[in-house]
This record gives sequence, C-alpha cells and structure tokens, in this order.
Amino acid sequence: MNKGKLLYEGKAKEIYESDDENVLIAYFKDDLTAFNGAKKSSAIGKGALNLSISAALFELLHDNKIKTHFIKQLDANNMAIVKSDVILIEVIVRNIVTGSLSKKYGIKDGLVLDKPLVEFDYKNDDLNDPKLHDDLCMVLGLVDSKDELDYLRAQSLKINKILSDFFDKKDIKLVDFKLEFGKDANGEIILIDELSPDNFRLWDKNTNQKLDKDVFRDNLGDLIGAYSEVLNRIEH
Amino acid sequence: MNKGKLLYEGKAKEIYESDDENVLIAYFKDDLTAFNGAKKSSAIGKGALNLSISAALFELLHDNKIKTHFIKQLDANNMAIVKSDVILIEVIVRNIVTGSLSKKYGIKDGLVLDKPLVEFDYKNDDLNDPKLHDDLCMVLGLVDSKDELDYLRAQSLKINKILSDFFDKKDIKLVDFKLEFGKDANGEIILIDELSPDNFRLWDKNTNQKLDKDVFRDNLGDLIGAYSEVLNRIEH
Repeated sequence: MNKGKLLYEGKAKEIYESDDENVLIAYFKDDLTAFNGAKKSSAIGKGALNLSISAALFELLHDNKIKTHFIKQLDANNMAIVKSDVILIEVIVRNIVTGSLSKKYGIKDGLVLDKPLVEFDYKNDDLNDPKLHDDLCMVLGLVDSKDELDYLRAQSLKINKILSDFFDKKDIKLVDFKLEFGKDANGEIILIDELSPDNFRLWDKNTNQKLDKDVFRDNLGDLIGAYSEVLNRIEH
Repeated sequence: MNKGKLLYEGKAKEIYESDDENVLIAYFKDDLTAFNGAKKSSAIGKGALNLSISAALFELLHDNKIKTHFIKQLDANNMAIVKSDVILIEVIVRNIVTGSLSKKYGIKDGLVLDKPLVEFDYKNDDLNDPKLHDDLCMVLGLVDSKDELDYLRAQSLKINKILSDFFDKKDIKLVDFKLEFGKDANGEIILIDELSPDNFRLWDKNTNQKLDKDVFRDNLGDLIGAYSEVLNRIEH
C-alpha cells in the first residue's frame, strides 16, 4: 500500500491518501502536546507505541463486534484505516472523576462514579473544545439527529465496558478516555482516531501510578516507560 | 409584613426573613454587576424598575397558570416571595444566538434559531457558572431525577412562549433570558428569582436597540432610560 497526498496534519498524527480511495493511512508521530497545544514536546518511540496499543485495542473491539476504521498495522508508525467523515464531537467517557472535570465543576478528584459519565466536547481547537449538550449539538449541526447522539452514547458505553474489563485483567484502571467517531461511505457510524495513552487515562490498579499522557502533562517522569508498560501488559 | 434577618446577599438582591416562616422578602438593589462580578456599578432606580417589571411579568405568568414564588410587591424595592430551596441550575432560553454562546461556539451573532434552545448552567459563582449537560446535573446532584430536568426544560419553553408573545405585542424581541427554579415546602418546582432586563436580553423589534443589561456590559449609554422604556411598554 503506497502513501499518497498528505490530507491532514494533527497534533499527534498525519493522515495520507493511499492507492485505494476508500482507505487512508494514519502516521503516528512522536510529537506530544497538552493543554490544547500550549505545552509541546516529542518522545522517540511514542508514535510506534501508540500505534501498537491502538492496533491491539481495535482488534479487541472487532472481536466484540464494534465497528471501527482500523484495517491493519502497516509498519511501526503507519496504520491503514477506512476513510470516513469525522463527526466533530469528542466523546469523553469517565469512570473516575479527575483532571479538568474535577477542577471545572468542583467535584472531588478521584471520585469513583456510580455509573460511567458520557460527555460531548466540540472538536474545535480554535474554540478550545468547549463542552456540549444535546440541543447544542443539533444547533451546531454536528449530527443529523438526536438518535445519532444516543447511538454515540450507547456505543461509547459498550466500548467502555469492553475496555474496562480488559484493562482490569491487566491490573489497570481505565479512568477516562476520549473517543471519536466518523461516518463511512455507507453513512454508518464507526469508531475512528486512535486508542492510546494519549487519549486514555490509565492508572495502575494497585498503586494508582499514572500510565498515560498525564506523565507528560504533569511532568511525572518517564513517558516512554509508562507507555511501554501499558503495551507490555496488553500483550501478556 | 416585617423584615427579619438577612439570609442572603446576592449581586442584585438581598433576601430577608419575614414574620411568616414560609414567606421571604426580596430587596432589589441598585447595584449592577457583569462578567461574573468583574464589572461593577450602581444606577439609582434600577432596583425599583426591575421589581416593577418582575412583578408585572410574574402576574402575567400567574394568569397563564405558571407557578412562581411571587406573592406581591410590598413597596418600591421589596417583594414578598414564597420560601423555596433553590435548584442550583441557571436555565437559559435562547431565541436568537448572541453574547457568550456566539463567541464560545463560533455561531453567527444574531442567528435566529429554528426553535428555542434551552441550556443549563451550574449556578456557582466560584466556578464561573460552567455549562452543564443532563448527566452532569445528575453527577453533581443538582436535581433528584432526569424527569425534573425535563420538567425544567418544558416549563422554560412554556414561559418563553408566554413572554415572547407578550413582548412581541410591545414591539420587543425576547432574545434570550435566564430563569431559576426552586422547590417549595411541598417539594413542587416553582419559578423563582426575578424577571428583569438584568437577566433578559430585550431588543427593540424595529431597530434592534438593546433594552437590557448589555447597555451596561457594553457601555451603550443610558441604562435607566432603557429599563424605563421596557417598563413603560409593559404597562401600556
């Protein structure tokens, strides 16, 4: 599969055309950003780790009948994906309250929720990804119907269950994570983006040690060590 | 009716006990604040204007079977109200997009919505009144059930219809407004707070001249003149 034109450069990935018009290639960069790009760095090997973790988790979801854009891992940093129209909503699923939600709403950091909380943020860096509610999603034209919002919520909760159970077996707490969705050529909503410690908060089940991008956000030490630990546990 | 102990001092009102344990007295101040208290001033007569406007609108709502905390106007600046437990949600109803919503979400200022948009903000000055969604209202324990949120939405839309129709006859566009609700001694949800140009965006139907607190926010000139114009049109 050959790489074509660069279509889009994001903070952590570049998206290229391929020689199949329905297939794109996602290149995982070593770049790291936090606080909507205000903090920047790079860590050699981060892109490859995120791709390997993402590939394993996409395969796990496929085994559980969740449709995603993942086709296959091409090499260390490149993944073939189904072309889709991105839905401009970041779906956040939270099992434990921490980070921005805790600060912004005065909720105790570390609160374990009775049931998972699903939130929608507007995927718009210029506007700093502000929080949405259903009626506002409709005003902004982000989806075609409220049923689509209900589908995003239901699908995200299903994914949360699958991933939480999986990580639990690896002695990792899935604290919260961000998902993105798109519509494929048939108009079907599929899971897109990546599934990595850049977008997932993962804490060691016994020590609460952070194994995710908070290591970078909060200057906690060895990011590559943390991400490698996640991959290692996933693979064994 | 005698004023008792001061129970609460807000930005625009003081709330006192009365000699009836189920009745409180709301004193309307001349103080003005905007941008969550960052901009402050005072305008002689503002409190009395807001009370007269509120009293007229509460009576209009009573005529239309909407339950509110309004009992009666006691004098120029004092209103007797039913004691209630405040629900810590600010309900915002928007007919035209302007102000913070336009800026925060990149929506065209002045966009007339196909149908009114109802939003919930967390009534919490320390946190700068952040935007809510239904599931977050539940996590924060702001209401007892989602049915209560649906009731707030439905009631706010009813109030919007009554007030929009009324203002339209007065050649005023009801652009958006904030409502607050509380639970009375029977646990019934009733409309509380005030109904005034401090909380309502009101534009002249023909000229779009602002007749509300934006005159203060945006330094547009004679606030008392604008509020007097609203009261004058309501009364004639």
